[in-house]
Amino acid sequence: MKRRSFFKQGALATLGGMLTSSFDLRANTILEENRGKKAKNIIFMVSDGMSVGTLVMADIYIRRKFDRPSNWMGLYETNLVQRGLMDMASASSIVTDSAAASSSWGGGVRVNNGSLNISPDGKENLPILQKFKKAGKKVGCVTTVPITHATPAGFSVWSERRNDMEGIALKYTELGFDVMMGGGNKVFNPSLREDGKDVYAILQQKGYTVVRNRADMQKASLKKPLFGVFADVALPYTVDHMQDEVLKAEIPTLAEMTAKAIDVMKNHPQGFVIQVEAGKVDWAAHGNDLGGLIYDQVAFDDAVKVAIDFAKKDGNTLVVLTSDHGNANPGLIYGKQCNGNFDRIQDFKHSNDWILQNIKPTDGIAKVKESVYNNCGKMSITDDQARELLTYYAQAGQEDGIYNYNHLPYKLFSEIQKAHTSVGWISMDHSSDFVELAMFGPGSEKLRPFMRNTDMHKFLLDVAEVEDKF
Amino acid sequence: MKRRSFFKQGALATLGGMLTSSFDLRANTILEENRGKKAKNIIFMVSDGMSVGTLVMADIYIRRKFDRPSNWMGLYETNLVQRGLMDMASASSIVTDSAAASSSWGGGVRVNNGSLNISPDGKENLPILQKFKKAGKKVGCVTTVPITHATPAGFSVWSERRNDMEGIALKYTELGFDVMMGGGNKVFNPSLREDGKDVYAILQQKGYTVVRNRADMQKASLKKPLFGVFADVALPYTVDHMQDEVLKAEIPTLAEMTAKAIDVMKNHPQGFVIQVEAGKVDWAAHGNDLGGLIYDQVAFDDAVKVAIDFAKKDGNTLVVLTSDHGNANPGLIYGKQCNGNFDRIQDFKHSNDWILQNIKPTDGIAKVKESVYNNCGKMSITDDQARELLTYYAQAGQEDGIYNYNHLPYKLFSEIQKAHTSVGWISMDHSSDFVELAMFGPGSEKLRPFMRNTDMHKFLLDVAEVEDKF
Repeated sequence: MKRRSFFKQGALATLGGMLTSSFDLRANTILEENRGKKAKNIIFMVSDGMSVGTLVMADIYIRRKFDRPSNWMGLYETNLVQRGLMDMASASSIVTDSAAASSSWGGGVRVNNGSLNISPDGKENLPILQKFKKAGKKVGCVTTVPITHATPAGFSVWSERRNDMEGIALKYTELGFDVMMGGGNKVFNPSLREDGKDVYAILQQKGYTVVRNRADMQKASLKKPLFGVFADVALPYTVDHMQDEVLKAEIPTLAEMTAKAIDVMKNHPQGFVIQVEAGKVDWAAHGNDLGGLIYDQVAFDDAVKVAIDFAKKDGNTLVVLTSDHGNANPGLIYGKQCNGNFDRIQDFKHSNDWILQNIKPTDGIAKVKESVYNNCGKMSITDDQARELLTYYAQAGQEDGIYNYNHLPYKLFSEIQKAHTSVGWISMDHSSDFVELAMFGPGSEKLRPFMRNTDMHKFLLDVAEVEDKF
Repeated sequence: MKRRSFFKQGALATLGGMLTSSFDLRANTILEENRGKKAKNIIFMVSDGMSVGTLVMADIYIRRKFDRPSNWMGLYETNLVQRGLMDMASASSIVTDSAAASSSWGGGVRVNNGSLNISPDGKENLPILQKFKKAGKKVGCVTTVPITHATPAGFSVWSERRNDMEGIALKYTELGFDVMMGGGNKVFNPSLREDGKDVYAILQQKGYTVVRNRADMQKASLKKPLFGVFADVALPYTVDHMQDEVLKAEIPTLAEMTAKAIDVMKNHPQGFVIQVEAGKVDWAAHGNDLGGLIYDQVAFDDAVKVAIDFAKKDGNTLVVLTSDHGNANPGLIYGKQCNGNFDRIQDFKHSNDWILQNIKPTDGIAKVKESVYNNCGKMSITDDQARELLTYYAQAGQEDGIYNYNHLPYKLFSEIQKAHTSVGWISMDHSSDFVELAMFGPGSEKLRPFMRNTDMHKFLLDVAEVEDKF
């Protein structure tokens, strides 16, 4: 592992161990460059449910596999960002859900868990993308989970219940936003919606290009608003997507969606604001699904590169990198085998979700063992463990996690996996950890090392010099 | 919970939502104040084994109990520090132990886990406090674990084995350091040492004031070097110390040791460097001991206040706040009861270690339940759980964690406790998380958002303008 020496630049300016003021010249220059400059564009990037351990393990994974830092940590190493911690508590709890978290930024007010921009006293808080839209900017969201899910919804609409995704889909048709892309066909498609409404048709009537696959997305006009829905519910995990040529052709990556969204909006004279979410980092944490988690965090990191590359060229774009809460606090655990166990992730071929979806009660022990061996970096489970998994299926076991729609043995399998990966989890749910927060570009120089979530709302309006009058 | 508004100062300078450059005036002033200024003194503060969740939960605990931020987070809120993440990997592992961690700072080289400042190729790396001492500064360490333990030792000596604490105690007699205080009587006292040597007598011969209790420490001369040993092994957990008038009279807090150490060294014309360690934060994490963890982190935070108050007045002191690795990645877990469960910690009277020490195999179920109820914030365990604990004792159960000298049922009890506190742990061992790093005072303006552990060595010498020639 080579690493750019922290002191490489400093050493040149150092004589006999003495410091000169040019040591930290670069950081100052960047602060100075940004000072007094308006953030015409904002790219607000959320790795949903990213505990610090998720950020760190993805970085270590990338360093060990590709001999470079993650794009996120690379910004830290080269001193191009300001960073802080953000307290994400909701009105009802120290530990937030994603709806209250996104609402804290989106509406600037702490709401109860489960609510979207409706305060405990019933007040409806105008979401920040509606404010930016009224101020003349182009706005949008892209995500790997349903586009009607909590994090994009918290920037876009209000709703008593985050779970009313059919209602949220209809609300989206009224917003006039410029790009919305992710999953969620179930709540747009007339044949799958409970009320049978054709939300796609409504969107087309309103002037949207509606795209349902990667190729159509890539060739979609840059002159019309764009609505992309690429899966019934969420997009596949990256580690599964990478292995499947059909999926790769049909479904864009988060980085590709981000690049397209920027293309659609970047030439707008009044600028743009977009939220980019890696939603399945959270789902993977809920499932203690290590392959799902690390590869989706890396996919998020690829999208970070798209955003930063644009922002560097543009010069008027603030990029915000953060998460909405911790989830499961994963970490690599001390032990003689931990390096080798961790490096096993490099050979993962599928998520735990995929592996467990593909086990049938009628499978034999050998078949289960073989699938785990091939898909989890040559991880050899015992006959007893394979039998235990099969018993779960035979008895229609009822693990019941939040995104465990098919009641798969996520927890059982993760516990078996732990001995082979040295990665542990505190739970299958959100945690109270303050979240990592980094900013690049104009406005970043104003970030303090600690922020309360609700202050983000005014911060974004302020650095964009948009008056909060709506 | 009131919180100082992030935008309170900014609002005065904000007109119609527009920003003025005075918005971030304070931060700039501090950066400018420090620029080009030498760090005459350094206070290097380590909360050993502090995962980000430990820092965050202690902060939330303090906010909810005392309606103020922790001293550490208060520095973030008021924008008085620079912060970064630090990669603490050792030569032998992604996940470090405390010896290799302290050696990475102390010797500037990654060594194998278990080693103190001896490189994998056998090279002995001169520890940083010896360098500062040669440069004319006063130097020392204070800790809540044996003063011969890995973290102070890594700043002070080299040794093939961190566990050779009797040898390390003898090495200390040769150093001429100015203040060393903590636990460890077992390796200084002739009646407890294997070789029967009276290390205290040697220290006195060398001119040290040797103190063995709080009162003697407080009245010790400021004109002589000071060696304080206040316990056979480690000092008691803060939550136990607070409840015991005898302990409180006999044994100083980390904040009191820090204040005394500063007093002994502060008038030295060439300045001083001290390492301050909250060593039992790590031990508590190893034991998944929530009361031990939170109250000891709060005690560390009290020591932070002592250091920062001195540094603010002095104006020439760099204070570094960090940890040497994550441990157990604790976090408060989402759920309807999590606020109330978390607030239960406010009523904790004793550490799990203390509670479990005081259970006897002959105790009845009612007695066990009563002790847990009284000492863990009215936590009601079931008869079956009490019976399970008693069975462990009756059968001389063999939990065997690193600091579990008496083979107490740390894990069993922590798992029972989890339902009542909503706090989870990934393991009973260290984790790969990059550690939080913050700096206050001259030199802090040079901190970048990411640092490799070994770069700390040169950083400290550089900001103190001490040539690395020894």
